[in-house]
Amino acid sequence: MLKAGIIGATGYAGGELVRILTGHRDVEVVWYGSKSYIDQKYRDVYRNMFRIVEDVCKDDNLVELAGQVDVIFTATPQGFLAGLLTEEILSRVKIVDLSADYRIKDVAVYEKWYGIQHKSPQFIEEAVYGLCEVNRGKITPDTRLVANPGCYTTCSILTAYPLVKEGLIDVDTLIVDAKSGTSGAGRGAKVANLFCEVNENIKAYGVGSHRHTPEIEEQLGYAAGCKVTVNFTPHLVPMNRGILVTEYASLRRKPDKTLPSCEEIRAAYEKYYGQEKFVRLLEKNVCPETRWVEGSNYVDVNFVVDERTGRVILMGALDNLVKGAAGQAVQNMNLLFGLQESEGLTLVPCFPA
Amino acid sequence: MLKAGIIGATGYAGGELVRILTGHRDVEVVWYGSKSYIDQKYRDVYRNMFRIVEDVCKDDNLVELAGQVDVIFTATPQGFLAGLLTEEILSRVKIVDLSADYRIKDVAVYEKWYGIQHKSPQFIEEAVYGLCEVNRGKITPDTRLVANPGCYTTCSILTAYPLVKEGLIDVDTLIVDAKSGTSGAGRGAKVANLFCEVNENIKAYGVGSHRHTPEIEEQLGYAAGCKVTVNFTPHLVPMNRGILVTEYASLRRKPDKTLPSCEEIRAAYEKYYGQEKFVRLLEKNVCPETRWVEGSNYVDVNFVVDERTGRVILMGALDNLVKGAAGQAVQNMNLLFGLQESEGLTLVPCFPA
Amino acid sequence: MLKAGIIGATGYAGGELVRILTGHRDVEVVWYGSKSYIDQKYRDVYRNMFRIVEDVCKDDNLVELAGQVDVIFTATPQGFLAGLLTEEILSRVKIVDLSADYRIKDVAVYEKWYGIQHKSPQFIEEAVYGLCEVNRGKITPDTRLVANPGCYTTCSILTAYPLVKEGLIDVDTLIVDAKSGTSGAGRGAKVANLFCEVNENIKAYGVGSHRHTPEIEEQLGYAAGCKVTVNFTPHLVPMNRGILVTEYASLRRKPDKTLPSCEEIRAAYEKYYGQEKFVRLLEKNVCPETRWVEGSNYVDVNFVVDERTGRVILMGALDNLVKGAAGQAVQNMNLLFGLQESEGLTLVPCFPA
Amino acid sequence: MLKAGIIGATGYAGGELVRILTGHRDVEVVWYGSKSYIDQKYRDVYRNMFRIVEDVCKDDNLVELAGQVDVIFTATPQGFLAGLLTEEILSRVKIVDLSADYRIKDVAVYEKWYGIQHKSPQFIEEAVYGLCEVNRGKITPDTRLVANPGCYTTCSILTAYPLVKEGLIDVDTLIVDAKSGTSGAGRGAKVANLFCEVNENIKAYGVGSHRHTPEIEEQLGYAAGCKVTVNFTPHLVPMNRGILVTEYASLRRKPDKTLPSCEEIRAAYEKYYGQEKFVRLLEKNVCPETRWVEGSNYVDVNFVVDERTGRVILMGALDNLVKGAAGQAVQNMNLLFGLQESEGLTLVPCFPA
Repeated sequence: MLKAGIIGATGYAGGELVRILTGHRDVEVVWYGSKSYIDQKYRDVYRNMFRIVEDVCKDDNLVELAGQVDVIFTATPQGFLAGLLTEEILSRVKIVDLSADYRIKDVAVYEKWYGIQHKSPQFIEEAVYGLCEVNRGKITPDTRLVANPGCYTTCSILTAYPLVKEGLIDVDTLIVDAKSGTSGAGRGAKVANLFCEVNENIKAYGVGSHRHTPEIEEQLGYAAGCKVTVNFTPHLVPMNRGILVTEYASLRRKPDKTLPSCEEIRAAYEKYYGQEKFVRLLEKNVCPETRWVEGSNYVDVNFVVDERTGRVILMGALDNLVKGAAGQAVQNMNLLFGLQESEGLTLVPCFPA
Repeated sequence: MLKAGIIGATGYAGGELVRILTGHRDVEVVWYGSKSYIDQKYRDVYRNMFRIVEDVCKDDNLVELAGQVDVIFTATPQGFLAGLLTEEILSRVKIVDLSADYRIKDVAVYEKWYGIQHKSPQFIEEAVYGLCEVNRGKITPDTRLVANPGCYTTCSILTAYPLVKEGLIDVDTLIVDAKSGTSGAGRGAKVANLFCEVNENIKAYGVGSHRHTPEIEEQLGYAAGCKVTVNFTPHLVPMNRGILVTEYASLRRKPDKTLPSCEEIRAAYEKYYGQEKFVRLLEKNVCPETRWVEGSNYVDVNFVVDERTGRVILMGALDNLVKGAAGQAVQNMNLLFGLQESEGLTLVPCFPA
Repeated sequence: MLKAGIIGATGYAGGELVRILTGHRDVEVVWYGSKSYIDQKYRDVYRNMFRIVEDVCKDDNLVELAGQVDVIFTATPQGFLAGLLTEEILSRVKIVDLSADYRIKDVAVYEKWYGIQHKSPQFIEEAVYGLCEVNRGKITPDTRLVANPGCYTTCSILTAYPLVKEGLIDVDTLIVDAKSGTSGAGRGAKVANLFCEVNENIKAYGVGSHRHTPEIEEQLGYAAGCKVTVNFTPHLVPMNRGILVTEYASLRRKPDKTLPSCEEIRAAYEKYYGQEKFVRLLEKNVCPETRWVEGSNYVDVNFVVDERTGRVILMGALDNLVKGAAGQAVQNMNLLFGLQESEGLTLVPCFPA
Repeated sequence: MLKAGIIGATGYAGGELVRILTGHRDVEVVWYGSKSYIDQKYRDVYRNMFRIVEDVCKDDNLVELAGQVDVIFTATPQGFLAGLLTEEILSRVKIVDLSADYRIKDVAVYEKWYGIQHKSPQFIEEAVYGLCEVNRGKITPDTRLVANPGCYTTCSILTAYPLVKEGLIDVDTLIVDAKSGTSGAGRGAKVANLFCEVNENIKAYGVGSHRHTPEIEEQLGYAAGCKVTVNFTPHLVPMNRGILVTEYASLRRKPDKTLPSCEEIRAAYEKYYGQEKFVRLLEKNVCPETRWVEGSNYVDVNFVVDERTGRVILMGALDNLVKGAAGQAVQNMNLLFGLQESEGLTLVPCFPA
């Protein structure tokens, strides 16, 4: 039985980690870290856990925790882990970091977009970007530190990856219009996230400046083999969970000047996702919807070719707290410990939820 | 491996049965009955089931189905099962009926409240009212027909049962004010259930005439040992799932004219639910909320004594599609086949959902 | 043109006052008081007011304000006005107080339920309880201080008033089960009011202890001519606006032991509300719903007699920010200045909203 | 007092016409046409209108209606008006058509996208496209037939118009990603629009094939002076009202190869909208949100320049039932009869609504 600790266990992603790990046969959570609720019972913070979790919240002492568990999940604000991580800690425990601290290889890019100084850049190189479907081979029992991808990022990249990798689209034309439920905004008490402010409203935010932009660009750049610059626009939707991305890109014409066919595009998706358990390529003309993935680790993807404009419209949907956070973190943990990748993640989407 | 058939598999309760049984280790669903979607793939009706269920919807031929499965769940409109049930069918298969056809022992009461003639009253006596926490002893491998309780009813009865049974309240004063999410209204295409009609609204309906009233009265009557008449008022709430009941009753004064204490009332709950896995008596001053049970088979209950008025206010919350329908049906099935009662039902509530 | 000042203009009730007064032909708002947003433009706080209101938020200096306006609306926390009010202020300006400070005549009751000391009890006697349909005669150009009723209270009282006044029900049996949209919880940044906490949930709160209880009891006590004690249970509903009350009471049997007829009960409502512009007695069998009053100053009421239990179920619906707060405040202001009572309040309910 | 008739008065747009015209000092609605509710009281269909509208719904006899009113609003399905319109009718009455029948000048384009034959193409040329801010000069007392623009279209065009007209963007790169509340889907009883299907979900639909596409292309083509082809992707959002469009286009570099500045872009908006009452160009860095326009005739627009990609992101928000339908129809009616354009339309946005 693996022992796990969660720093930030009382945020929404932390809570989802608890829900998922509760049903994982090989893991036991032994540390519920929560700066705001130290010494309070976890099930008094999340009452769904009444009779299920009896533990009391502890502080976020990473050093102490490293000596007690096999794996630490950090569901914490940007800069937290970077400010505390040491070689000693990493030598004793594996870490799956749900924050952005080790996602971006170029520390200057990180510091520019996040507006903070990176306190432990020496670990960036070692960290593996934990997008399992793309980087599975690098997430092994030898890996110590996984940078768990962002919610928008996971959805944006997985939706476009096969077409970028296969050179089917002109990456310079890629535009990502993303829509997210409100749990992505966290559990902090802010007027902007009050029920009456979010309900009956939709808005874009962080236009041209959202921090998931460089993460998308870096990863798609690896796939494209060149520098990629995209427009990424997130929107806040009055629902609890779910991310939908709608992406636009010009198809690359073939030598005979014709556009790639639907079959060719579908084949590209099949090539990369045909064997993937958690990526579902939908049937023709079926658009991804967040309701069909809620509560599960699935990403649903599909596309429409618009011959009039020569563009392809790509769509992807996932549950931001599962595949976009806690589920993917557990998927990474499974790989880190040589467990079956889907262990604890055969969550059937719940509808209506 | 038990084989199960579902008649009405494409309604919301039917869909939830599929979700739950998909995770049940001892059961396989082999018949997805759906009058409206015959020959269509089930996962084209509920796309959450893409890659999980590959079956095609079949008709509702109960006789044919009885020869192929061990248990049939009927998630069908009132009168459907009563119109088709025969001794031959019952001799071949066990049935868990999610409709009201066999819930009410007095056929005249059934016919008055439901406004239809009962076509097979000869089976009413045999049917066991499947409120497991109350009638567990009668739901055995010898039982052939279970009348699965209604959603409002399950919540209303379990919330009041210990106090009625122990004579702590004056049952003539019992008032049940119930609030339900919209999945309880079913998946039929009606203007009244459109998003724009339900959203941003709350209303009472069926005031003084809702069909769950006589079911509550009959069952609480057994507990009280006398005829019980209640006011039951359901309300439609703009949310997908969940039922909350708020019940009011005058406490019976003790011989010394004092009111029962909180401790005495709590003891009554503990007496009946102390060992129950799916009923959670909350801690003092914690009110049940539907969000904490969503997706699970739990009923959360609690109470407040108002000394000013001499009344006790009882509260109960459950997920109408789980403990209020499909979850309880599976709980009954487990009892019918001698399986562990909670098999397939250790569903951790999902928050936020 | 009357000049008005609003203290607490950036709360939800304050915002609604601004919306309503913007369309009032006889009033001009000249002071937008807001402790939290001093010196910020009002339309940067509520961007719906862009191009409509150009004023900057000011502090809450009641004395200074009293010298500049004809009427002050205080949409402030309990204790604010009581802590500042003086004879000098009242001698210069009329005040409509949307807080509870002067609603309850018995200062001991106020202090017990609100848990604070009342700093200016000398004005309680003078204050008129501004439930216009009941106290219209006392709200005149001679009145200086109006205690604007609470949102739950307005709905609860108006729904029951005619039956209490006419002695048709046994007031000792009155139970008020109330459901409110979330704007009633205010615009403060609290975790409990975040979108993800309120959405997909319903809960009771303040059970047996909500502060609107003594206000309901006092006013219905005047109608009944005796002390009244009720159960009042508020619930939080995932919608922005609206309050629905469902009230239960035993009908008083007539000397011949029969129950009052529907016609008699209807006649009681007609007697008190037949000429009322803002109270709509619905037609038989039509239940009040919050969607039909949203954005308006209407209260919709109706009732169902349950002969089985001898009770009557009363229902009332209003918009908590309009008739439950700002609209009623303007109605009171109109009376205070001898304007037409409905001036600025002919707001057509907006559906779907 | 003008007399108006509404065909399709019981749809959501028709209901909004009634709400707005109820507050219009120069118009009286004398015909509430509704095929589905003939002979029923209008206020039994929309109970918000109880005590406000006492009329009974009539049929959709256009000829008879033409003899009784000054103006007809047709809020009807595609093809309805085209199938009935005659020179005789048009000679007797002005018509504001909220359907798409006369919006598109090229009848072949209409027939291709709508999949129906146009039954009266002889009136297409005469019809004026009623986007008031662009075509005001053509909507005069001499005009007989106004094609009221679509909801998505109004928002999409007004958001981009100044930049297209001024040649600041490369129109071939224009992409419109639109999000709509559910009232845009109409009041028909369809499973897809049930509360439980829409709530907690976001999806794209009509990808590459939505019928508002050619309407956007035609109108922006006039502004650009060339054929325009765009990607338009609508999404369904779990809210009642509101449309938000997010548009992407490459900025045209100036002769010196630099991008247009923010100031230049802002100046273009000011040039066209500086005097417009209903178009609000927001301040820098403020993104339009649907909540700030709800219930009003405003369109809020703004933009962000992304120098990294050379694109501009345009955003626009409106209430689909007001500026996107009924409000704009009344605006057109005002112009048709020489009234003040904003008469009856000084609707203050309602927040939270």
